[in-house]
Amino acid sequence: MSCGDLLEAEVKAYMAPGISNEKKKEDEQSSKGNAIHLCNPHLEKMKEDILYHFALGTGTHDFPALFGDVKFVCVGGSPSRMKAFIAYIAEELGLGDQDGDYPNICAGTDRYAMYKVGPVLSVSHGMGIPSISIMLHELIKLLYHAKCSNITLIRIGTSGGIGLEPGSVVITRQSVDATFKPQFEQVVLGKTIIRSTNLDEELAKELMQCSKEINEFNTVIGNTMCTLDFYEGQGRLDGAICLYNEEEKLQYLKAAYDSGVRNIEMESSVFAAMCNLSGVRAAVVCVTLLNRLEGDQISSSHDILVEYQQRPQKLVGYFIKKSLGKV
Amino acid sequence: MSCGDLLEAEVKAYMAPGISNEKKKEDEQSSKGNAIHLCNPHLEKMKEDILYHFALGTGTHDFPALFGDVKFVCVGGSPSRMKAFIAYIAEELGLGDQDGDYPNICAGTDRYAMYKVGPVLSVSHGMGIPSISIMLHELIKLLYHAKCSNITLIRIGTSGGIGLEPGSVVITRQSVDATFKPQFEQVVLGKTIIRSTNLDEELAKELMQCSKEINEFNTVIGNTMCTLDFYEGQGRLDGAICLYNEEEKLQYLKAAYDSGVRNIEMESSVFAAMCNLSGVRAAVVCVTLLNRLEGDQISSSHDILVEYQQRPQKLVGYFIKKSLGKV
Repeated sequence: MSCGDLLEAEVKAYMAPGISNEKKKEDEQSSKGNAIHLCNPHLEKMKEDILYHFALGTGTHDFPALFGDVKFVCVGGSPSRMKAFIAYIAEELGLGDQDGDYPNICAGTDRYAMYKVGPVLSVSHGMGIPSISIMLHELIKLLYHAKCSNITLIRIGTSGGIGLEPGSVVITRQSVDATFKPQFEQVVLGKTIIRSTNLDEELAKELMQCSKEINEFNTVIGNTMCTLDFYEGQGRLDGAICLYNEEEKLQYLKAAYDSGVRNIEMESSVFAAMCNLSGVRAAVVCVTLLNRLEGDQISSSHDILVEYQQRPQKLVGYFIKKSLGKV
Repeated sequence: MSCGDLLEAEVKAYMAPGISNEKKKEDEQSSKGNAIHLCNPHLEKMKEDILYHFALGTGTHDFPALFGDVKFVCVGGSPSRMKAFIAYIAEELGLGDQDGDYPNICAGTDRYAMYKVGPVLSVSHGMGIPSISIMLHELIKLLYHAKCSNITLIRIGTSGGIGLEPGSVVITRQSVDATFKPQFEQVVLGKTIIRSTNLDEELAKELMQCSKEINEFNTVIGNTMCTLDFYEGQGRLDGAICLYNEEEKLQYLKAAYDSGVRNIEMESSVFAAMCNLSGVRAAVVCVTLLNRLEGDQISSSHDILVEYQQRPQKLVGYFIKKSLGKV
């Protein structure tokens, strides 16, 4: 059976009986909760699995000992932001290191950075769908090899807003493509397949409730448009290449708004698609750095941008504390 | 006229008379050589241009003073590799710093890293088409604002080989997509456009000649397949998701080989397309870390991989020295 012909529903039908049942039998811990669905029968046959872009491997690292207690994984583009997040969450959970030093678990490579404190893992993913997709393949395998269960995976990122005050936070209802469809197109063995980009509705509502309880910044639930390019792909007029005019740009952004899009970023579609296929509860929480109906350049001061970028961290930090009964 | 309807030839027809002539009039320096073609009439109207992902701006930095003498730009995925390259080329050109310290010009951000020594600029671009595309938009604007001319832009990277001994270097003839077509599909304002991915033939031959003169490792000129994904997109069996079998995988890779593909990576198509449109002489030189007909995992020792990764640096370093009459 070729993957190229499979729609997401068919993929689920194909993998569910085989893979998830097998796992429940062999793994007592994961049978108690929601185990990671590994949509790949070939991995069982491999003696060793090298997660090349993490510089980790099952032959050299004890995954269950290192990661078995992980329950929350937060991912974001910038390595320094993900390091700041682990320090923040450590403080919030009362697990802070005295000298505030959190070693990079992926120190053997500069592709991604990874930090851990208690049940929280924080991982950078770079910019764009291909970059986060490599990271997610290796992260999902890491969680599987570590026999983790009941994982909540949240992307905390930055984005361009549409029709929102800069600094607003958007919790993604659906990730849509550049034609506003809730789908992710992917080429596998030269054939185009379509995967669903739905996210966990319940989790989005829980996060919205957290924002109400914090009551510090504007938060909305809306659709997020995921593009393959920051300049032409998002209708900017300030790239090195631009062959449309301002009117055409605004027409496009307003059509996006009318279809329910409230922000634009570059990772959510493959994030949603891969979490769906792997049975991981997932959410996307991004702050908007500007209102794209009013401009293209990110020209707010450094301090204001730093404060904006802390908002998704604050919201997700509060959610984790609440989930652990520490609020 | 909408960009969404333009094929590459039309884009060139559209921009050539207006943009490149204008530039020649206003800029004496660039009229002497090949100036950067800025395919965007809107930029002329902007008072200031903030290159957000470089943390540089025309309002805060003197681009002609900082970058006006640049002639060679080398780009690669990993920031530490691009730092190593600048130290290497500095030594080779006799421009080495005594304490070997090369400051990161983009220290204000962790999105990209940038280093300069004499006429050589070295910039990291992360992984995947979107990540390198953001970098290239800002790099092309940087070179334009700095009034640079006669630029040679070379990507030095890593890749998976097809039918080659690991460690072989591939100089790209054409970058092809996952269906082996020499084109780059891009969505602009929701419409799909196709751009050409040709690279400079003359430059590829010059680089091949350099490899012969060095005579240290196997080098070939061949097509490079550029994909949006490292695992499913390249037919790997070891990702978190894989719904095809080994036979289907090998069929696909052999079809790629038969069409002239010798290696697979994740950035060359948009790199070629953007360099074409901007009138920049460009090449892609990647080492192959493994032979994909024999496996998927990158399992060579750290030391061997480090030595492989130095090969494109060595080749391009020799090319730069030769171009400057220092060989």
